[in-house]
Amino acid sequence: MKYCSDCGQQVNQRVPAGDDHLRWVCDNCGRVHYQNPLPVVGCVPEKDGKILLCKRAIEPRYGYWTVPAGFMELGESIAAGAARETREEACAEVEIGHLFACVDVIDAGQIHLFFTAKLISDFSVGTESLDVQLFSEADIPWDEIAFHSGRYALKKYFEDRGRNNGVHIHELRRAKS
Amino acid sequence: MKYCSDCGQQVNQRVPAGDDHLRWVCDNCGRVHYQNPLPVVGCVPEKDGKILLCKRAIEPRYGYWTVPAGFMELGESIAAGAARETREEACAEVEIGHLFACVDVIDAGQIHLFFTAKLISDFSVGTESLDVQLFSEADIPWDEIAFHSGRYALKKYFEDRGRNNGVHIHELRRAKS
Repeated sequence: MKYCSDCGQQVNQRVPAGDDHLRWVCDNCGRVHYQNPLPVVGCVPEKDGKILLCKRAIEPRYGYWTVPAGFMELGESIAAGAARETREEACAEVEIGHLFACVDVIDAGQIHLFFTAKLISDFSVGTESLDVQLFSEADIPWDEIAFHSGRYALKKYFEDRGRNNGVHIHELRRAKS
Repeated sequence: MKYCSDCGQQVNQRVPAGDDHLRWVCDNCGRVHYQNPLPVVGCVPEKDGKILLCKRAIEPRYGYWTVPAGFMELGESIAAGAARETREEACAEVEIGHLFACVDVIDAGQIHLFFTAKLISDFSVGTESLDVQLFSEADIPWDEIAFHSGRYALKKYFEDRGRNNGVHIHELRRAKS
């Protein structure tokens, strides 16, 4: 961040009065530009014991497999966001279940929230995907999963065996993906 | 948003190629300025069956009571954020428990995440609070709770009676508070 999005003047980094964090501050109009982690929402769509994965057609991790997930949009709920991502990446409709995993991706400034889901439609390859397939647990391509957060979600999903055991929380301190 | 935070030129709102949402786009440097919901993290600190609430010394909802909660900061986990907010608002240390409530505050562009917590220290009035007190369930000032999300969290907290029943999810479409 170099310029104020409100007035276009240069911003400076300092600790505002009454604060204890460095912020980008505009000394022209006074606006403090807070920066916060962003929510990523996804789901693990299941049908007949198999899981729907998407092979990424975009960077990062082009060509690797992932559960449907992406940045939450303004105006939607976390559950609606997870369903929308599935629609976009796999042209599939899901019935969202319960929230079961949350990964703090500290260095990326993101929190990843994962739901269980039932696949309730056909599927096909969305524009952000190279391929979309159903995998049995034994066939999950663990070494080709795009992100640590998605791998964590898949592992916990299988451990839960359909039960709602609350939210498994995991902290990623280094961006290893 | 009026100006590009990267180059200082005016931004325009349009749907970028390959996208289906209106975005603020800089036609000078090409940067797309995505806007996403922000996570708010909080907890319900309990000690001897009583809940720690803070009376707000800041707007919005000056003078109303709330569980400790606030915007998550970069570099921290959701659990660490909830503990930090408790430290700031109530000068208190907590042992964070499990995630039990998530409220989509759609019109504010926020998701509110609440943990159970054990109060493990003394407490006093933080700079953002007018007062901090422990309340038994019967004494919770329900009509003076600052936000719908916090009221929802408190209600679900008492309903759970200490059990981890997973995450209660609630969607707020209109900013009523």
